[in-house]
Amino acid sequence: MKPSPRKEPVIYVVEPFGGSVRKHSPSLPLVYADDAAVTRSDGIFESLLVRGGKAANLARHAQRFRDSARALDLPEPPMHKWEEATRLAIADYCGTDADHPDAKCTWTYTRGRASTGVPTAWVTVQPLGDVPLHQRTTGVTVLTSPRLWHVAEELPAKTLNYAATMAMLRMAKDKGYDDLILTDPDTGEILEGATSTVVAVRGKKLRTAAGRGILPGTTQAALFDYAQDRGYRCKAKPLTVEYLEKSDSVWLVSSVRVAVRVTKLNEKTLKAPDNEEEIRGLIDAALGA
Amino acid sequence: MKPSPRKEPVIYVVEPFGGSVRKHSPSLPLVYADDAAVTRSDGIFESLLVRGGKAANLARHAQRFRDSARALDLPEPPMHKWEEATRLAIADYCGTDADHPDAKCTWTYTRGRASTGVPTAWVTVQPLGDVPLHQRTTGVTVLTSPRLWHVAEELPAKTLNYAATMAMLRMAKDKGYDDLILTDPDTGEILEGATSTVVAVRGKKLRTAAGRGILPGTTQAALFDYAQDRGYRCKAKPLTVEYLEKSDSVWLVSSVRVAVRVTKLNEKTLKAPDNEEEIRGLIDAALGA
Repeated sequence: MKPSPRKEPVIYVVEPFGGSVRKHSPSLPLVYADDAAVTRSDGIFESLLVRGGKAANLARHAQRFRDSARALDLPEPPMHKWEEATRLAIADYCGTDADHPDAKCTWTYTRGRASTGVPTAWVTVQPLGDVPLHQRTTGVTVLTSPRLWHVAEELPAKTLNYAATMAMLRMAKDKGYDDLILTDPDTGEILEGATSTVVAVRGKKLRTAAGRGILPGTTQAALFDYAQDRGYRCKAKPLTVEYLEKSDSVWLVSSVRVAVRVTKLNEKTLKAPDNEEEIRGLIDAALGA
Repeated sequence: MKPSPRKEPVIYVVEPFGGSVRKHSPSLPLVYADDAAVTRSDGIFESLLVRGGKAANLARHAQRFRDSARALDLPEPPMHKWEEATRLAIADYCGTDADHPDAKCTWTYTRGRASTGVPTAWVTVQPLGDVPLHQRTTGVTVLTSPRLWHVAEELPAKTLNYAATMAMLRMAKDKGYDDLILTDPDTGEILEGATSTVVAVRGKKLRTAAGRGILPGTTQAALFDYAQDRGYRCKAKPLTVEYLEKSDSVWLVSSVRVAVRVTKLNEKTLKAPDNEEEIRGLIDAALGA
């Protein structure tokens, strides 16, 4: 796959209650100092893969976005307007190049400015960056670490609260690892990646973790639906580190990186499976399905 | 006390590594769409009381700000520049009126834009708003609720991660309460207010909570230092709901509201103490000390 060219992001602002969408220059500031996104991370987001000139897995992202808004008691987002802004931003970004390299689309929706009370909403399309592309090829080394904060079970929303996760990720990188899998501090069971869903493959069995405060993964859901129809048995159930170590392959699955194989888990090297391309093809196909 | 006039905020941008400070119009956006404050709440803040034309309790806020930066692995903030910006912003906001009503100053320091890697930093001075002024007089009704997330003990930083707290606060308000005290989900012990430190008064004894993941309170520290020198015995130790119910008075202590008395705790009305003005005077004096 060719690397993304260094392109400027494209930003479209969405009127939060419907109405118009408009382009915003990425070289100008967008957010006011009194926006709840800045003052208390009070907002939600979704990251979508842009592939072949369109947003992959759109319906699942739209559903989770609506669910997140409801969990945070934000006004219901007018999804046809978000989808319109997404289409326009992708068209501006990719142009007429149907073979355009993968890109990343982000929806951000905040409680808005203290001084106006009106939510702030925008769509960005930008290059993937070299790291995700590289990791798709090389895989990632992963440290497991207990999640030292609980996520309220009533709030399974994709909020802007990522500072604690980012601090843990920096800690993992300081120790020489590429990525992080969070575990339950009480049981030691696998929860999720820092920004991904964990999937373990054993023969025709696909497993993801079930546990407290796991954000439902849109890419994992697409994969499981697609694979189930093709003879795989797919389940969410409690997973241990030992289960991962003894699997044929272990994957971090997410919208933008799609699927990166875990090559090392803590001290232990995980051997490459025979069917790495098969699994990757399954996920790619699921996103196109 | 006269209500704050409806004034525009004053914003000063701080060069994160030292250098100049410059005024920024509050009617223009300040933060770029790719700032870590917006994309993952990766930053810190301090709220300071502006009283009598200067920032109260400045040294304790500066110390906590430096500690928060260190906990998040942000470059050490040049405090003389932050203090310069604070003085300029306060002078612009208050003018020459030495009797200017209390105002609120906020320092915000983020990991900055993904595209530049340079931190973003600014100081705002703005009106207190009517609610804090009103609550100083009337007190607040408070619901206790278990904190459903842990705060990493290694990360006692004042980060921009407030979405979960804000969700709990909305829940308390839906139930007819003004404010919230978070409790330990395992022991039921008192932790802290949503945006304040809990202080209980019994005669000449002042108590605040000791427990997991409590952010050290700058106003409570000023109060305890000042009161200790004036014959009060001041301690941080584990506190229960029952201890609060049986105290002479219970206070939520914070920079901007300073001290609001808890008039009702869950179902139970807490009676007004004889020495309400004495306690309030003690805290006001501590902040001026």
